[in-house]
Amino acid sequence: MKLYSMPSSGNSYKARLLLALTGRAAEIVDCEQGSEALARARAGRVLPYGKVPALVLDDGRVLAESDAILWYLGEGTAFIPADAVKRAQMLGWMFWEQYSHEPVIAVRQALLSYPDRAAEATPARLADLLERGHAVLRVIEDRLADADWLVGGRVSLADLCLYAYTHTAGTRGGYDMARFPGIGAWLDRVRSLPGYVGLSS
Amino acid sequence: MKLYSMPSSGNSYKARLLLALTGRAAEIVDCEQGSEALARARAGRVLPYGKVPALVLDDGRVLAESDAILWYLGEGTAFIPADAVKRAQMLGWMFWEQYSHEPVIAVRQALLSYPDRAAEATPARLADLLERGHAVLRVIEDRLADADWLVGGRVSLADLCLYAYTHTAGTRGGYDMARFPGIGAWLDRVRSLPGYVGLSS
Repeated sequence: MKLYSMPSSGNSYKARLLLALTGRAAEIVDCEQGSEALARARAGRVLPYGKVPALVLDDGRVLAESDAILWYLGEGTAFIPADAVKRAQMLGWMFWEQYSHEPVIAVRQALLSYPDRAAEATPARLADLLERGHAVLRVIEDRLADADWLVGGRVSLADLCLYAYTHTAGTRGGYDMARFPGIGAWLDRVRSLPGYVGLSS
Repeated sequence: MKLYSMPSSGNSYKARLLLALTGRAAEIVDCEQGSEALARARAGRVLPYGKVPALVLDDGRVLAESDAILWYLGEGTAFIPADAVKRAQMLGWMFWEQYSHEPVIAVRQALLSYPDRAAEATPARLADLLERGHAVLRVIEDRLADADWLVGGRVSLADLCLYAYTHTAGTRGGYDMARFPGIGAWLDRVRSLPGYVGLSS
């Protein structure tokens, strides 16, 4: 397997984190924003619609979409619950991440981090993303009020998926994480998992 | 099972369509926008975060997120591919729908259909959603250039998920569907499935 991955991107990090936690190997092709490697992969039409992450399987088939890659790499591991209802609840959090969390929490981080997004980073836009992001984080905080993990009493793909952009929400996104002590403890639990690697590893 | 469903909403329709296609029964609780039934369900805290669709299982557990409900109802049926790669590709289309398709194609329809969204329906917003929506539809059209279905040569949850808001994109959303003959033929294929029900059924 070959994972085309952007080192600075939470979406790419999801797959790298799961590979590390499950002890699976894949060739990682770093494609940083603005890099020659990314331009080359796009020119070679390796990446569906030019996007990373993309997982190229040994038979040549390609998987896109970070959470679908997580699912593929997670099948057959304990990161997908055995119970059908919990499995669907896990996917529910992952769809929620793509629809409600990423477009707010990750976008504010991108606007503040990537020079080519700076023009979009108007005060009004940043203020809107800040307010909406705190409401999004409140949903996770409420869920963790009486649970260590999002689904089924143990770590699942839902936690990894939401960890990716939540663990940098304060440092990169300017969110006030002191309001969310439950999230803080949950981030620590993820960091303590055997095999854990950080975003910049 | 009890499905809390908004009759006019594509997200709710996904679950109703799959129930019909698989011949499964569920009690449908209609919760139209602005209805007393919706207000009652919200007041009774039945709906996670007040959102529909929500599927209440016989043991009282509740599933939210339209595509996670699709997954749950689809498990054990031929609407989920047996092959692991195809299964992940199917989920990839479903994540893409939530991230890239629904926030454009469904939102333009909502702005034009629901009176409480009319204030957001500025000419600039509608023009932006029109242009971006045509690009989104082009992705589906390209995929269907050499395939009858989105994944694996037969109908899957990916097709039902994307059918929901695509089949009303012209009539409700004002998109120029004449540009997308492949999508037109695919919509007809979905409509021809045994057990098919329409949005307003």
